[in-house]
Amino acid sequence: MAADTISFARGAPSLDIVDVEGLKEAAARAFANDPGGATAYGTAIGYPPLREWIAQQHGVEPAQVVVTNGSMQADAFLFDELVEPSDTVIVERPTYDRTLLALRQRLADIRPVELEPDGIDVDGLSTLIESGVAPKLAHIIPNFQNPAGYTLGREKRDALVALARDHGFTIFEDDPYVSIRFAGDPLPTMLSLDSNENVIYASSFSKTVCPGIRVGYLVGPAELIARIVKRATSTYISPNMVAQSIVHQFATSGALERSIETVRTNLKARVDALVTALERDLPDARFVAPEGGYFMWVDLPEGTDVDKLFAAAGERGVTFVKGTDFLLEGGRNTLRLAYSGVTPEQIDAGIGRLAEAYHSLSGTPAPA
Amino acid sequence: MAADTISFARGAPSLDIVDVEGLKEAAARAFANDPGGATAYGTAIGYPPLREWIAQQHGVEPAQVVVTNGSMQADAFLFDELVEPSDTVIVERPTYDRTLLALRQRLADIRPVELEPDGIDVDGLSTLIESGVAPKLAHIIPNFQNPAGYTLGREKRDALVALARDHGFTIFEDDPYVSIRFAGDPLPTMLSLDSNENVIYASSFSKTVCPGIRVGYLVGPAELIARIVKRATSTYISPNMVAQSIVHQFATSGALERSIETVRTNLKARVDALVTALERDLPDARFVAPEGGYFMWVDLPEGTDVDKLFAAAGERGVTFVKGTDFLLEGGRNTLRLAYSGVTPEQIDAGIGRLAEAYHSLSGTPAPA
Repeated sequence: MAADTISFARGAPSLDIVDVEGLKEAAARAFANDPGGATAYGTAIGYPPLREWIAQQHGVEPAQVVVTNGSMQADAFLFDELVEPSDTVIVERPTYDRTLLALRQRLADIRPVELEPDGIDVDGLSTLIESGVAPKLAHIIPNFQNPAGYTLGREKRDALVALARDHGFTIFEDDPYVSIRFAGDPLPTMLSLDSNENVIYASSFSKTVCPGIRVGYLVGPAELIARIVKRATSTYISPNMVAQSIVHQFATSGALERSIETVRTNLKARVDALVTALERDLPDARFVAPEGGYFMWVDLPEGTDVDKLFAAAGERGVTFVKGTDFLLEGGRNTLRLAYSGVTPEQIDAGIGRLAEAYHSLSGTPAPA
Repeated sequence: MAADTISFARGAPSLDIVDVEGLKEAAARAFANDPGGATAYGTAIGYPPLREWIAQQHGVEPAQVVVTNGSMQADAFLFDELVEPSDTVIVERPTYDRTLLALRQRLADIRPVELEPDGIDVDGLSTLIESGVAPKLAHIIPNFQNPAGYTLGREKRDALVALARDHGFTIFEDDPYVSIRFAGDPLPTMLSLDSNENVIYASSFSKTVCPGIRVGYLVGPAELIARIVKRATSTYISPNMVAQSIVHQFATSGALERSIETVRTNLKARVDALVTALERDLPDARFVAPEGGYFMWVDLPEGTDVDKLFAAAGERGVTFVKGTDFLLEGGRNTLRLAYSGVTPEQIDAGIGRLAEAYHSLSGTPAPA
């Protein structure tokens, strides 16, 4: 990989949109204001003031919240708790590659259901269930989905919650990007629409504070949360209290709101640059401009070979993740572009290189 | 439990021996000096500068080290990697209750071997192996063992390493207390005595920095470490980079050495107070004064019922952990006293209460 390679690969923020100064101040306050809470073991529920803050944000009881070392760890606990070998789990098609890996490791019967620009094909899921498939769990990334950038519409949210209630499965609402909306109107969480304990919700501070802080959480039925707390206790006694007390200070001081505003403003500019560059340099690309989050999904014409494109792009100093990584099969003409870690200038140059790579394969000249 | 209950139960430091100011300064430096490293995802190997520092301390290559979210999490990865159902695992008798739980959860064939004041009965282990038992793993806490406070002698260290080499099992050298030695001379780790990749070593900064920072690590054969890194990646992507960069700053600035000195000095005073109080108030108690660490094991005369003692102690405002918690069977006349969280004054008063409880059961009057 060239030294100046422009990476659309990793879903991580560039350092310029992380409030390092605010984190430093939050850490100083955490140690000064609650030295005991920050430095002692604590318990697997997480740092209690942060747990309460999260509960308030979601309008639930603290007993419905467990704060973990990042939301991936929360996912792992949840899957360990709910997914037995050969249990049927619905996933979106495409979906987050690490979710597929985690479900495969647990020998789940993975059933992908098509993801449309307004979210999972609920009618398709309904048909699947009517055909006799009985899901235990449905994994849904409702906002600015990874990898597609698509958002689940309001009606589909209601329909999914109803389906879960009627057929007795759990919706795992995996929502790390929810705060990073820079266009359109916020939609209610399925957690808030559910009145039958069919939804367990996960989110994280990785996209609003920073990923290195590794603080995520689950919100759900108190009984399920209690089981996960027990599992967490026997895994690590307690999660990181220093990090969670820093997040608590960051969240309650106003730094979190400011940080979210910074992230939104910058990501909006990056999406705008991405759309402009794609329309200019790669008119064959089909995509939906995301209203938030980190990712854009790109379809290229049928027959495009993403392996070859990846290699040709690498030679020209640009990288991305192949769409095939997010699918059990197919998607050879698709890719994911993460714009969270690149500036508008890098996006402009990077899409130029990607277009060159694409046109080198198809044999057609680049647009004038 | 009475509001002023004195707790000998939890193996955790009191706040007065935690260098909160040093932590605050280390956090400020971590964010100032390496904002990218502290705030980004990183990878499952841990924060690279801390990994290198640990490797140097042990005289190994960085590829032989993985830094985790506390050493319990490291244990969990190691057990997941090495222990299949019905695998034979040697443990010390008594041993850490969470180790027993973790091994039970993995359906191991747990074989306790007597712990003597100079460590596990190596001859007994040898006899067990000769009788046909083939251990996969032996879990050993070599220094100031939890719960007994005993330390594995030098000759037994050599003998164990030789036994592991000859019989092809792995020694899990679980060593969180090693730095907290306040009497006697340090002994070499089995890791350093091993030349055949039979030892995997775990330690932690919980006892030298603070527990809430949740930073632990494993040192071992590079191939095994690589497998654990892969497992860690699929569990949580990366451990806490903020916490690990704080520990790195704490360790390289001299704060760690000062903190260890503070802990040693204070724990020495607590052990002295404990020995004095036990000899004065509870002459029936048999114990070995620990040379380091957090714990003292107490044997009371045969026939003592630790359940009744626990209840009577609770009524008098003092608590501890029953010896039976650290054993698969037996130990009804034993208990563990943790002196890490109590001042000498509290120890003095607490042992007075414990003695009262004891004498209330045995019917014998307290010593004059």
